Parts: sequence; structure tokens; C-alpha cells
Amino acid sequence: MGFHLHERLAADTIHVGDLALSRVLLMNDRRFPWLILVPRREGLRDFDEVASEDKADFYLAIEQASAALRALTGAYKLNVGAIGNMVPQLHVHIVARFPADAAWPAPVWGYGVAEPYEAGALENLVAKLARELGLKSGD
Amino acid sequence: MGFHLHERLAADTIHVGDLALSRVLLMNDRRFPWLILVPRREGLRDFDEVASEDKADFYLAIEQASAALRALTGAYKLNVGAIGNMVPQLHVHIVARFPADAAWPAPVWGYGVAEPYEAGALENLVAKLARELGLKSGD
Repeated sequence: MGFHLHERLAADTIHVGDLALSRVLLMNDRRFPWLILVPRREGLRDFDEVASEDKADFYLAIEQASAALRALTGAYKLNVGAIGNMVPQLHVHIVARFPADAAWPAPVWGYGVAEPYEAGALENLVAKLARELGLKSGD
Repeated sequence: MGFHLHERLAADTIHVGDLALSRVLLMNDRRFPWLILVPRREGLRDFDEVASEDKADFYLAIEQASAALRALTGAYKLNVGAIGNMVPQLHVHIVARFPADAAWPAPVWGYGVAEPYEAGALENLVAKLARELGLKSGD
């Protein structure tokens, strides 16, 4: 069965690469280092609905994305969330947070307006993330 | 090593019972059916920091709490989140959401003011949750 990324996710993010199960996206918002993981399976909505045989990969991706963000940013706190009230396709947010960031201590979801990266900074960050995750950039 | 529930979590919730690893709490806010899971280990902050030997129980508790909320409420969507910017002790929110609820489609965190349950309704819901989770109420 084909996998189609929800158009809203496609519009708001850059494709970093694909882990065993999950697509890794970078939110194009330089206010927050912010990854989104999307299991490449059709029809998933809720966090607990991942098939048994995919669960290990699903949870591992969260750990890998968390480790990559922590290594690259020195995150003070990681926020993890699967909300999906507006975009029903299952996706997991992993956000590196800092006491001096734009939204602290509030959650980032729905907070203000995204500020896109400049092109050079974006390419650089995507390459670093891909390397940290053991992916070829833009896989 | 002893386990101490953060005072803010203790103040805002009712103890439903304890699963293998995680304490199950009900947020005392009748606007949203809202469970909080807290692994009974000292010093945990982030979602990916649960010890290897505890991970299976940690993830299973999320699935069990999700299933219990879905069974009891017919949730339209489940929101799962580990944020912890204000309460650093690792805790996972699992919230049953509906298109007609008070905050929809926004996340519940920081949304308005909690509305406590009435005593009878609270006792009733805690008992139902405990039964659904296979716990003795108030364990």
C-alpha cells in the first residue's frame, strides 16, 4: 500500500531522510529545533495504533531523533507529542526546548508564526541531522 | 531508591492505580478525559531516558492507558505528549479528544482553567478506569 505524506506536513517541513519505518522531517521554523516522525504506513492516526511488528522501529525512531537533537543542540528539555487534531495522519513531534526560546515554558504547538530558516542554514542543519541519524541527506 | 511524585502532579490529579512501571493519574479536569503516566523511577526527565529494561513496560502503559480511554469515552482522537517544561519529572499525558470539546482543535496544555469533577462523578470514573486497566482502584 502506498504511503502519502499529508499535504500540510509536506508544506511545513523539509525531508531529512527515512529511518526503517518513519520518515524524518524538519519543521521549517528556526525558532525551535523540531523534528517530526511519520511512520510510512497508510491509515495510522493514533500513537497506540502502530502495528505490533512495527512498534520496535516506531519507538526506536523516537529515541534516535531525540538523541540527534540533543547531540546537535544541547537541548535543555525535549518535548515529545502526537496530537494530530488538525493533521490526522500519525506524526510524532520531537522538539528541543530551551528556557530562552520563543515559547518557553509553553508548548510550541500553535504558538505564534513559524520563521523559516535561511537557505544556507537549512541545508546545513538538514545535513547535520542526516549525519547524526545515520542517513544520507534527502534519502 | 524511593519514588516521589512531583507536588504539582499530586495536586492536580487523582491516583487511579499503579501499572508495572508507571503510576496512573487522572487529571482532575472534567473538560477532558485525561490520564497521566509517571514511571516510578527517580531522576527521569525526558521520554527517551527510560532505562532499557523499563522500556517495554513504559510503552505498554501508554498503549493500555490509550485503550482504556478509548473504551470508556469513544475518543475521536487521542493526544499523547511528554512536555515537562514546568514539571520536570517525566510524565506522559494521554488525553481523549472530541471535536466538540472545550479546546478543540488546540492542545489542552495550558488551555483555560481546569474544572474539577464533582465527587460522585470522580469516584465513578476512577473506578471505571481502574477496572479497565485491570487495577484495584486507588492501588
